[in-house]
Amino acid sequence: MRKLDITDIEDIALGAALLGAGGGGDPYIGKLIAIGAVREKGPAVLIDPEELEDDAQVLAIAMMGAPTVLAEKAIGGNEYRTLMNMMTQFLGRSVDAIYPIEAGGVNSMLPIAASAHLGIPIVDADGMGRAFPELQMVTFTIGGIDSCPMALTDEKGNCVLYRTISNKWTEELARSVTMSCGGAVSVALYPMSGKQMKEYGVLNILTRSQKLGEAIRTVKNQDSGLSPEEHFLRFSEGYKLFRGKITDVRRETRGAFNFGRVLLDGTGEYKGRSAYVDFQNENLLACVDGEILATVPDLICIVDAETFSPVTTDALKYGKRVFVIGLQCFGLWRTPAGLELTGPRYFGCETDYIPVEERCKGGQADV
Amino acid sequence: MRKLDITDIEDIALGAALLGAGGGGDPYIGKLIAIGAVREKGPAVLIDPEELEDDAQVLAIAMMGAPTVLAEKAIGGNEYRTLMNMMTQFLGRSVDAIYPIEAGGVNSMLPIAASAHLGIPIVDADGMGRAFPELQMVTFTIGGIDSCPMALTDEKGNCVLYRTISNKWTEELARSVTMSCGGAVSVALYPMSGKQMKEYGVLNILTRSQKLGEAIRTVKNQDSGLSPEEHFLRFSEGYKLFRGKITDVRRETRGAFNFGRVLLDGTGEYKGRSAYVDFQNENLLACVDGEILATVPDLICIVDAETFSPVTTDALKYGKRVFVIGLQCFGLWRTPAGLELTGPRYFGCETDYIPVEERCKGGQADV
Repeated sequence: MRKLDITDIEDIALGAALLGAGGGGDPYIGKLIAIGAVREKGPAVLIDPEELEDDAQVLAIAMMGAPTVLAEKAIGGNEYRTLMNMMTQFLGRSVDAIYPIEAGGVNSMLPIAASAHLGIPIVDADGMGRAFPELQMVTFTIGGIDSCPMALTDEKGNCVLYRTISNKWTEELARSVTMSCGGAVSVALYPMSGKQMKEYGVLNILTRSQKLGEAIRTVKNQDSGLSPEEHFLRFSEGYKLFRGKITDVRRETRGAFNFGRVLLDGTGEYKGRSAYVDFQNENLLACVDGEILATVPDLICIVDAETFSPVTTDALKYGKRVFVIGLQCFGLWRTPAGLELTGPRYFGCETDYIPVEERCKGGQADV
Repeated sequence: MRKLDITDIEDIALGAALLGAGGGGDPYIGKLIAIGAVREKGPAVLIDPEELEDDAQVLAIAMMGAPTVLAEKAIGGNEYRTLMNMMTQFLGRSVDAIYPIEAGGVNSMLPIAASAHLGIPIVDADGMGRAFPELQMVTFTIGGIDSCPMALTDEKGNCVLYRTISNKWTEELARSVTMSCGGAVSVALYPMSGKQMKEYGVLNILTRSQKLGEAIRTVKNQDSGLSPEEHFLRFSEGYKLFRGKITDVRRETRGAFNFGRVLLDGTGEYKGRSAYVDFQNENLLACVDGEILATVPDLICIVDAETFSPVTTDALKYGKRVFVIGLQCFGLWRTPAGLELTGPRYFGCETDYIPVEERCKGGQADV
């Protein structure tokens, strides 16, 4: 158990945004919300999953919707209490701790804000180890854990509570209401026991995010003897996919998702080559000179070529120079059940899943 | 308090379908559901609103969605219990009686089926005195009564509970989920006290429906000395608008509503004349030879030219011979608050509301 100070929060936001793989929202907005809440209400407390009693009651607090909309809509502080009241009423018991549903610039931060507002700790675990666009795409679904009861509220005060027959149906019905509410809402979902969390959660993800964020922050002031790029690939355990300049970003906001493709012209050692990355909130597939180098569920992360700060899909713009890496996803995603939920074919990509380390074997991506 | 027998139910379905003004669902489907429930579970009991204690808890049970879809989807019996469990949990008390939200072939019948399933009585009152396409279009909205908590369930077992900031928002968010669930769902809504029901409800509407249904059933076997048409206009208190043959029906199912226009060529005393009726689930506007003769919130009812059985908008088809009448709506709809909710301009009709009896004054419509 430890209190999160301002630097901790900033590092978590930055590292979680990297793990967001293009989604999960803008870490700048995320950290403003979390730091504001901590300054106003008092510290947020992080606990290790091992500190949870088996019969503890935990649930996730998150935003749902298109990240571009999320950046436009105000987030108050009343939502957390509203969500918690609805959930405790339906669960018939109090909640011992909250947790983030995914890594990402906003969804790693909202539980910190909620922790400050509600005075209950955050568990150092999530349900993805990255960000994914749909609600059923969590390790908990593989574990047979119900997303419901799930509570949803918007900034106007509308509240909706779900009990569905499957996590996919929760996604469907919550997405409809999210769209009707203007494209982004606050939710509480996947209530579960401490035992279930320890069994199926992606453990210590906030601590990992924090270490990644700290390393990005200090990438130019480190004394490893490595170049910043080499150092970045080392600490992130990343596979180098491409370096280039953005030449076009095709976007479409549809069904409360951001769809699109970013096109890149190679720079530096990639000069004369080209690449693209497809996304649905998160990056789905990276293709260099016609060869697919990485797909979901592995993480495709686009970072600023100089600072190595993560660039979310909504921040992609013409002329920006970026560096693209692939990270191995959490092991459970590579099982048949995991690939059924989040493999490339689910997203309409015409390829089987091949782990990023195999796709990059022998190529320039090997480090 | 009286038990409803099979003939009572059949007459209510028929009369309510007339008052449905083209909407509210197919009375044949409605009565099958109600009679099936009564035969299986025991009688449904109707109580007069005056029999309600002021502090009694009542709520409406209804189907929501496009009537065309409603005819395609199976309706089980589990929905009533599911809805009631959700509502009692959120209300924190038991429910003393249920009521129909609107007149109509299906929505007059579901509370009868629910009454048989749940063993609680139906109040002889509703919130429209006709059918309307949107959820906030009830006299209760004029009375400041909240539609929430509202429960929604589909035939698969998905459940959603709403608490919104306005009845219009309930419509918006429930309509989204209705569409995602395939276009038709079961709902429980507008929980209120006996006092509120007596103050704002359209009282004795089931009894009125039953009398209308009985009169339609016996229109050719009555001894009033009047022709069937004269007799029909007399007992329905209707204004004659048109008689003709359907030459075209333009339909569009959009946003879980049935939109359209039916075109008519005059027959009999209307030979050589033409008319159309616009609808959104319910009939909105009747126009004869370019002159508007009736609009919402007054009732525009299309009935079979021979049997005087109501023809719902989804049963309109080429070649059918029909008789079109206008009925005065419940008084509260003619107030400024009522017209804001359900007047012709709300539905996009470019005309002010003029009561049907004034529009038809001096014309052929006067009886």
